[in-house]
Amino acid sequence: MKEHDFERRYTALRKIVDRRIATLARRGKPADLNDGCHYVLSAGGKRIRAVLVLLSCEAVGGNIRQALDAGVAVETMHNFTLVHDDIMDHASSRRGRPAVHVRWNDNTALLVGDSLMGLAYISLMRTARKVQAPLVELLTEGLIEVCEGQALDLEFEGRNDVTLREYFTMIEKKTGRLIAVATEMGGVIGGGTSRQTCALHQFGRYLGRAFQLQDDVLDVVADQGRFGKPIGGDIIAGKKTFLLLKAAERATGNDRLLTKRLVRHHGAVPPSERGRVIAEVTALYRRLGVIAEAERQIRRNTTLAVGALGALPRNRATGMLRWLSEALVHRNS
Amino acid sequence: MKEHDFERRYTALRKIVDRRIATLARRGKPADLNDGCHYVLSAGGKRIRAVLVLLSCEAVGGNIRQALDAGVAVETMHNFTLVHDDIMDHASSRRGRPAVHVRWNDNTALLVGDSLMGLAYISLMRTARKVQAPLVELLTEGLIEVCEGQALDLEFEGRNDVTLREYFTMIEKKTGRLIAVATEMGGVIGGGTSRQTCALHQFGRYLGRAFQLQDDVLDVVADQGRFGKPIGGDIIAGKKTFLLLKAAERATGNDRLLTKRLVRHHGAVPPSERGRVIAEVTALYRRLGVIAEAERQIRRNTTLAVGALGALPRNRATGMLRWLSEALVHRNS
Repeated sequence: MKEHDFERRYTALRKIVDRRIATLARRGKPADLNDGCHYVLSAGGKRIRAVLVLLSCEAVGGNIRQALDAGVAVETMHNFTLVHDDIMDHASSRRGRPAVHVRWNDNTALLVGDSLMGLAYISLMRTARKVQAPLVELLTEGLIEVCEGQALDLEFEGRNDVTLREYFTMIEKKTGRLIAVATEMGGVIGGGTSRQTCALHQFGRYLGRAFQLQDDVLDVVADQGRFGKPIGGDIIAGKKTFLLLKAAERATGNDRLLTKRLVRHHGAVPPSERGRVIAEVTALYRRLGVIAEAERQIRRNTTLAVGALGALPRNRATGMLRWLSEALVHRNS
Repeated sequence: MKEHDFERRYTALRKIVDRRIATLARRGKPADLNDGCHYVLSAGGKRIRAVLVLLSCEAVGGNIRQALDAGVAVETMHNFTLVHDDIMDHASSRRGRPAVHVRWNDNTALLVGDSLMGLAYISLMRTARKVQAPLVELLTEGLIEVCEGQALDLEFEGRNDVTLREYFTMIEKKTGRLIAVATEMGGVIGGGTSRQTCALHQFGRYLGRAFQLQDDVLDVVADQGRFGKPIGGDIIAGKKTFLLLKAAERATGNDRLLTKRLVRHHGAVPPSERGRVIAEVTALYRRLGVIAEAERQIRRNTTLAVGALGALPRNRATGMLRWLSEALVHRNS
């Protein structure tokens, strides 16, 4: 398959997911709650987790139709985390539209998130009965780990001594686990051997790590219009990203004073100073080469992810998974 | 069995639940999240939903040990709703202790709630494999209905035209469904016939309705120390309770003006006026006989609940369920 064919198939799979996920929200009363769920689920997005479930299923010999409801389940679970994270992070927008708690209010957003979690399980239970039990266990494990990851992320905002090792534990839970759940689920649904589902899990872990590192990088270098959320959000929120922690490790002289100030800065930067702070920090990151270092780590994890695919048959789906991992490194949104 | 034996068995079952539920929270990092989950799960409470799962299982011939993890699951799901409801209702205390969002903060409480939902599914999946699928479907249905009920409750606070019919729809979702889920689950685990599980579901519905009506009454007449939350909370929050809606229906003259003002009052009463408002509203409720009317409705629903038990064998567990329904009418906390 050529680049163009990969892209075309990705778009086709994404649309299949979009169509199915749009039917998941309930209609009618209570209006705010159901409209809110519909608003989130119809917002599009890359649907990467759902597509990973479909492709992982096909990779081990299954049919994507068997995996669609599970794909929608993982994607819905991911959307629940976004709705609650946006409340906690006071994020104003998501996918180029107001966040749920801004469009409605905090209480509605809280309940929309809770309901999405329920809808995720409803979708999951539409999968063939004989794989339901391991799928429920996987989805639940994903849910709990994502909560732990978000709790660590919030805890880190208030600490000055976060290490890169702790950072990797946090992103493993917050981002990596649900991606690994997606790829492992696909393997289980497709009837893969335990060696194959294990390889798919490893693939998801490395991919998730590359994905989160890329998210950290995109926060400072993305094309704002395509990224869908404001640039420099992590800097403004005082998030302990890979870039900041690596900068703190490398900086000397005046740069060291600046990174210390950034690490100690807890809470949001006032609006009037945001532009200046973002420019200053971006320049610091470039000066210390931490963006280039993050890109090296992204490539390394992508290589490990592609390596894990070696345990799987060479077919159209594994070709897609390989392409997808490499496309990630070059994404700009 | 005598009154004393019933009470002793209830206490014994509650303790079994307490012991098992205390092992559910994770330990270690992230500390706030895991400590928060442990704080909630170890707070005690009546454990009525868990005990209903155990007794419903035994009622159809099962052993309570088969139902313990499912009982803990329903109880944990219930606790998740309390943690999130307390954030939304700005409630300061729960079971005589600070609410999670007061003891920690809103973000931690949000994540504690999310995690408890995950822990509920983890516990549920410890039940025998062959009943897992219907149990996951029941628990998920309970989760979604509880969210809808809470959304309606919040919506009602801002509306002047809530009907008693809408009130009953709301409590059916917010309180009734999870209780019906508990009793139906017990029937499924115990291997009950579909007629038996259906009867247990009906029993749970009526019991849930009686339970919520009793909660509305206790808000104005309870013994504060034993109730575990401040008296008059519903009045202060402007909740559309059975008492308020029935009072609005019955009031004439000056009382009509007062109930209209109460129905139109959206949002919390300032602290300095709380004592006066609670006394005034309680006097109004007594004058209009709406507390007595609520008590009649509680007795009616209790009778219907006990009637539903007629489809089940007469044994120690159904005797306990009957006693439990009647004890509810007389509870003061």
